[in-house]
Order: sequence, then C-alpha cells, then structure tokens
Amino acid sequence: MRGEAQTKPIRLFKVAGLSHAQLTNLIAGIRPAAKAAMTVFESYPDLAVRVATEGVAQEEMSRLYHDLRQLLGPHLYAEGERSLEEVVGRLLLEQHKTLALAESCTGGYISHRVTRIAGSSAYYFGGAVTYSNEAKVLFLGVRPETLEAHGAVSRETALEMSGGIRVKTGVSIGLAVTGVAGPAGGSSEKPVGTVWISIDDGQCHEARRFQFSGEREKVIAGTSQAALDWLRRRLLTEAGGSMFKV
Amino acid sequence: MRGEAQTKPIRLFKVAGLSHAQLTNLIAGIRPAAKAAMTVFESYPDLAVRVATEGVAQEEMSRLYHDLRQLLGPHLYAEGERSLEEVVGRLLLEQHKTLALAESCTGGYISHRVTRIAGSSAYYFGGAVTYSNEAKVLFLGVRPETLEAHGAVSRETALEMSGGIRVKTGVSIGLAVTGVAGPAGGSSEKPVGTVWISIDDGQCHEARRFQFSGEREKVIAGTSQAALDWLRRRLLTEAGGSMFKV
Repeated sequence: MRGEAQTKPIRLFKVAGLSHAQLTNLIAGIRPAAKAAMTVFESYPDLAVRVATEGVAQEEMSRLYHDLRQLLGPHLYAEGERSLEEVVGRLLLEQHKTLALAESCTGGYISHRVTRIAGSSAYYFGGAVTYSNEAKVLFLGVRPETLEAHGAVSRETALEMSGGIRVKTGVSIGLAVTGVAGPAGGSSEKPVGTVWISIDDGQCHEARRFQFSGEREKVIAGTSQAALDWLRRRLLTEAGGSMFKV
Repeated sequence: MRGEAQTKPIRLFKVAGLSHAQLTNLIAGIRPAAKAAMTVFESYPDLAVRVATEGVAQEEMSRLYHDLRQLLGPHLYAEGERSLEEVVGRLLLEQHKTLALAESCTGGYISHRVTRIAGSSAYYFGGAVTYSNEAKVLFLGVRPETLEAHGAVSRETALEMSGGIRVKTGVSIGLAVTGVAGPAGGSSEKPVGTVWISIDDGQCHEARRFQFSGEREKVIAGTSQAALDWLRRRLLTEAGGSMFKV
C-alpha cells in the first residue's frame, strides 16, 4: 500500500450520480494537506476527483483518501482508471447475474459500452434497440395500448420495456431506457432530454424519470451513465442485502 | 464555386474501403500543383485525403479535385466533414428505405452510429444486439442447427441473421454482423478479427468475410465502417440500377 502510494502520487476517485457543481461543492468541505491538490476532472459523462499527493506524508495521504471515500459514499464507483461499464461487469460476474438491454433513445450506446469490455459475453445476453414503436411491440412485447395511452416516453412504457426484455430473454436483470434525445421530438410536457430508465430484476421493477441537458450526443451519453450507475447501485444493494440479511 | 474555394483552401475527401497504405499508394500517382499539398489523414476507422490549396489557382485546384474524384471513384463517400453514417442516412431517406440491424460482435456500435444522426428514426426501425446464440435464435430466428453446424461466426449464420431481422421487422434492408472481436474466442480457422457481414435487401442476400487486425475496439470500429460502407455501395448501386435501367 505504502509502496503503491509512493510510486503513484496521483489517484482518480471516479464518481457517478453527481453533477460537476455538486461534486465541487461536496469536496469543498475537505481541507487537504498543504501539498495535496484536489481537482474535479470531467470528460462528460465521466466525472472524477483527481488527487495529487506528491511530497505528502503517507499518513496525511491516507487520511485524505479516507475522508474522500467517506464523503463520496455510494457516488464513488472506482479508484483508478476503471470505467463504469467495467465495474458493472465485474459486479454482474461476481453475482452470477445476466443482463439484457432494451434501448430506445440511446440507440445501442449502452450495449456498446457493456460490450466494450472483453469477456462481457459471460454476463451480457444481448438486447434490443427499439427505435420505433413497432420495435417496442415486436421485440419487447410492449402493449400498443400503453404506447397509445402514455406515449413511448413514459413510466408505463419504460416498465413494460424492462419487464419485457427480462421475461423474453430469461436474464436476471432487464434494463431499459426511453427518452427524447433531440433535437426534435420534444414538447412542453416532455422536453428534449426527458428520459425514463427502468430496471426489472425480479425483486425490483421500477422506473425513474431523468432530465438531461445539452445536445443529442450529451443526452445519449448522460443517459448511458445514469442507467449503468443505477444498475451498479442496485447490484450493490442486492449484495448488501444478501450479505447482511437485511 | 470559385468563392467557396477561395474561402476554404482545405478540403477533405473522405474514403472507405481502402487501407491507409492503399490510399497512400493510390494518390501517389497524382502530381498536384507546386503549392498544393495532399496528405492522408486517418483517425481509425475514418480515412481521408486532406487537400490544402492555399494560393493555388482556381483552374489548377479544380483539376486536382477532378483527378482525385476520378481516382478515388466509389471509395470516395463524402467531400467535407460528413460522416459515413450521415451519408448512409441521407441515401436511405432519399430512397425511402428502412433499415434494421442485427449485431453480434459490434455489440450495438453500428446502431449507435446510425442513431447519432438526428432524424434517423425516419429510416431506422431498430435492431437486435444478439450477443449470445440464444439471442440469435430468439430475436432473429437463426436456426439452432445452423449455429451447431457452422458456428456463430460463419457465412450461414450471417445470412440467417440479415434475413431474419429483415423478415421479422418488415424493413427494406437487414444488415448483420457476426465475428470474433477478441481478445479471446479466436481459433486458427477463425482468428480474432474474423467478421462476417451480411446484407439482405430482398434483391441481394449476400455475406462477405472480412479480416480486421488490432485490439477489440479497433475490430469493432473497423467492422462498423465496413458494414456501413457496404450498405452505402449497395444503395448507390440500387439507385444507379433504377436510374440507368441496367
């Protein structure tokens, strides 16, 4: 530990679920040693605290790392260079769980991120890119009445998407997203950047609404991050639940 | 034309279907005017000839552009900044054709590229990421006997994937890819980088074998480029065929 710290005086604390501003405010409460430097580093949707501890005493550094971990809590998904999809993949593997995706507005980008990881075929079944309403009906069994009554971007459709992909494929977890990536397709009720994400893992079948800002590419990237992060938290809760018999 | 050339003395000639070395050799035969400079620019899988004509006379420049177009022929897919997925999207739109994808080794990356283009829902139905054999059977109707006899990475499976996605979704064109992205999964017969791409547009139902080199990300990127480029050429042939009654 000591040796590693001395050869690597820079460490990334990777974060999801916070905005750049929220993270900046959060770490403002930490007063690092004189020689240590903390900067918030963002390459959207990637967000991290970069800690430089060149010349900082070992104890001082350990206390700073400890304080950061406490402060970031469940928002901290990795220390070092690991990506969110890598962390999620490792959790799925460890828990012997399988995943299938149903993507609308992200158009396959989450699937691409998951399969960027070598060995992902061990836990990734595959998925459907349901870019049209017909595709949602055909591949996921979403009911036409649901689409008619609530629209493609709605809690109801998101729930049927995650449930549909899970049941059709027989995986442990179905993850679905449906939203308005823009630039067209927005309305006052559902502006560009409105996204519903839904998870069905047999225990939890839930949908949450998110609001992203920015251009099409940014909405897609932000949605992929939020979906993978929710999945990560859900997997951690499950692990905690079974470990501590909550 | 003259005005545009004077304000933009740099032009990209974007190319697909050639390697960096092939393109370099090809353009070596052109002798540009003294002040013009041609360089091959690669950001894999993107490849282009960058032509700088600062201070070059209009006639000289027009002749150089003409020579380049002649030389590059069908490999030239755009002049300027347009991406291959944008060019393909425009062709689909112009020809009132719809597309569905069946992706194995690319894991949704082609779908992501197609849907990066705003308005792609006008021609993109959606698709299936069939990362497992079960997914190929479930979403595409690939026959288990085909997978058993020839393997997931084969001409036979690729053909059933493109045919399956086209028939199931009712689109004009089904495009499918299946291959070994690596680093694991290769064999002497089908090394890492072996990819089968297949198109079914009702007229043509064909599969071609490609061999890519490099890391996983590079195989995925290269496959996406080859698939979109084949689709582009097929759409151009179709257009030519109907226009010239060949």
